Amino acid sequence: MKIFIPATSANLGPGFDALGLALSLYNSVTITPSSIASIAIKGEGAGRAKLKTNNPFVSIFHEVYTQMTQKRENFRFEFQNNIPLSRGLGSSSAVIVGAIASAFHLAGVRVEKEAVLNRALEYESHPDNITPAVYGGFTVSVVKNGRVCTQKKALPQTLKAVLVIPDRPMSTAKSRTQLPKHYAMKECVNNLSHAAFLTAAFFNDRWDLLRLGAVDKMHEERRMQQLPELFAVRSLALETGALMSTLSGSGSTFFNLVYQEDAQRVEDVLKKHFPDYFVGTFGFDNEGFRIENS
Amino acid sequence: MKIFIPATSANLGPGFDALGLALSLYNSVTITPSSIASIAIKGEGAGRAKLKTNNPFVSIFHEVYTQMTQKRENFRFEFQNNIPLSRGLGSSSAVIVGAIASAFHLAGVRVEKEAVLNRALEYESHPDNITPAVYGGFTVSVVKNGRVCTQKKALPQTLKAVLVIPDRPMSTAKSRTQLPKHYAMKECVNNLSHAAFLTAAFFNDRWDLLRLGAVDKMHEERRMQQLPELFAVRSLALETGALMSTLSGSGSTFFNLVYQEDAQRVEDVLKKHFPDYFVGTFGFDNEGFRIENS
Repeated sequence: MKIFIPATSANLGPGFDALGLALSLYNSVTITPSSIASIAIKGEGAGRAKLKTNNPFVSIFHEVYTQMTQKRENFRFEFQNNIPLSRGLGSSSAVIVGAIASAFHLAGVRVEKEAVLNRALEYESHPDNITPAVYGGFTVSVVKNGRVCTQKKALPQTLKAVLVIPDRPMSTAKSRTQLPKHYAMKECVNNLSHAAFLTAAFFNDRWDLLRLGAVDKMHEERRMQQLPELFAVRSLALETGALMSTLSGSGSTFFNLVYQEDAQRVEDVLKKHFPDYFVGTFGFDNEGFRIENS
Repeated sequence: MKIFIPATSANLGPGFDALGLALSLYNSVTITPSSIASIAIKGEGAGRAKLKTNNPFVSIFHEVYTQMTQKRENFRFEFQNNIPLSRGLGSSSAVIVGAIASAFHLAGVRVEKEAVLNRALEYESHPDNITPAVYGGFTVSVVKNGRVCTQKKALPQTLKAVLVIPDRPMSTAKSRTQLPKHYAMKECVNNLSHAAFLTAAFFNDRWDLLRLGAVDKMHEERRMQQLPELFAVRSLALETGALMSTLSGSGSTFFNLVYQEDAQRVEDVLKKHFPDYFVGTFGFDNEGFRIENS
């Protein structure tokens, strides 16, 4: 079997731990029953020896597979990793979702998206990346009693994401510790009102209102201090026509949502000004993970 | 002229200072040019002498009217007040919106809803009651540079509001001071995720998801401490079939959203258990304030 799992961009400004969307940028994993266990990695992480000896996808896969089948069997795993690691594009969630869905499939269990998602929540306590990795589209999620409840909006082909991916990660640990434990009432009110307004704009196709909704006061600028060039990325993207421009997850990637006809221009301008960063245009994924039988 | 202004229910659980909706419960004011100024009040506030000598509607009306016409003229104001005072049903916002819209109209200025709303923001700094009083429906609002930006959803006739209006107000001052100045990250995340989810449920007609979205951690239960019977109102309403049950504004009214076919049952049960409170069923207003020429 082969599974494709999309990259995801979460938070989306004010939507801390709640909002996310899926991108047409995929990791794939081909899994084949085999007499001896083996791993091959191409793309992101190919050079990391640790990913061969202690691979999180393989660990989660076996945990779920063994629990379902009561058997430990050997497989060959061939990874084609296209989602950059530690850049706020949901590579960890892609691993979790992909491993669980693959284990379900190979164990002969029907791969129900909801069941995969709720299982994924055991490995990743925030729903904002795992949910769009499962369903695709734009998603707004809450967690109740250990279960994710979500509403989804498919995104049209007329919108694109111009990603600006810095040449270095932001430290997630540092990124978390930089955040305050408490927020002033006006910061809370800013985020809840803007997250609600942004969500309405997505569901109402009011792309012109995304920018107004995408104002965060909880984490974005605090995290951007670690990589101050990102302030210039955001200004430039918005000046050049981006509909919204937000830190992707906890960074370091910047996510710029644009009309299709503006994508090339925004991409060109950002490339010119940030020659050391990867800048590329992607569509949105509206399906979530996808399994092919081979 | 005669103006009708709807009651409004704001906050709606997690939507502190951001979400609101309009009810088919109206104050009306008839305003007639007159050689001598006079005020007549029927309904709520009829017995309050202060409302005759220092009436906020009349003050705001004259301020706006004089600014527009450079004239001070005399009018007779006849109030029919149906919105209870100080019960979290937007009586103050109805006054502000009604006074401004009436002044525009009598000054011969075109009554544009957006202009009325932005003017109202000068008298009431939070947009959550004034916005539905102007536009009707369910509204999600943010404020930028002194202007309200809003998205609206008209509510169907198949939904009703069963209001439980206690026989006493909650002290707004006390109600505000009981709220903390700072909130834990998990409280903020709760409210932003639920406000976004609740908003999506309104826009997507997912009435079955309202209850899941209507979870607040910032103000509701802290305020309900002042009137602990409200915990029983909420439990009973939800048990009896309410789709959501939240404190209306800062209280003391409880707002219960129900399917039309459940309204009578929910109303009956709440009446029986809370005989000292007013319990009544109302529809939703989808138009906002409305002016009739007489």
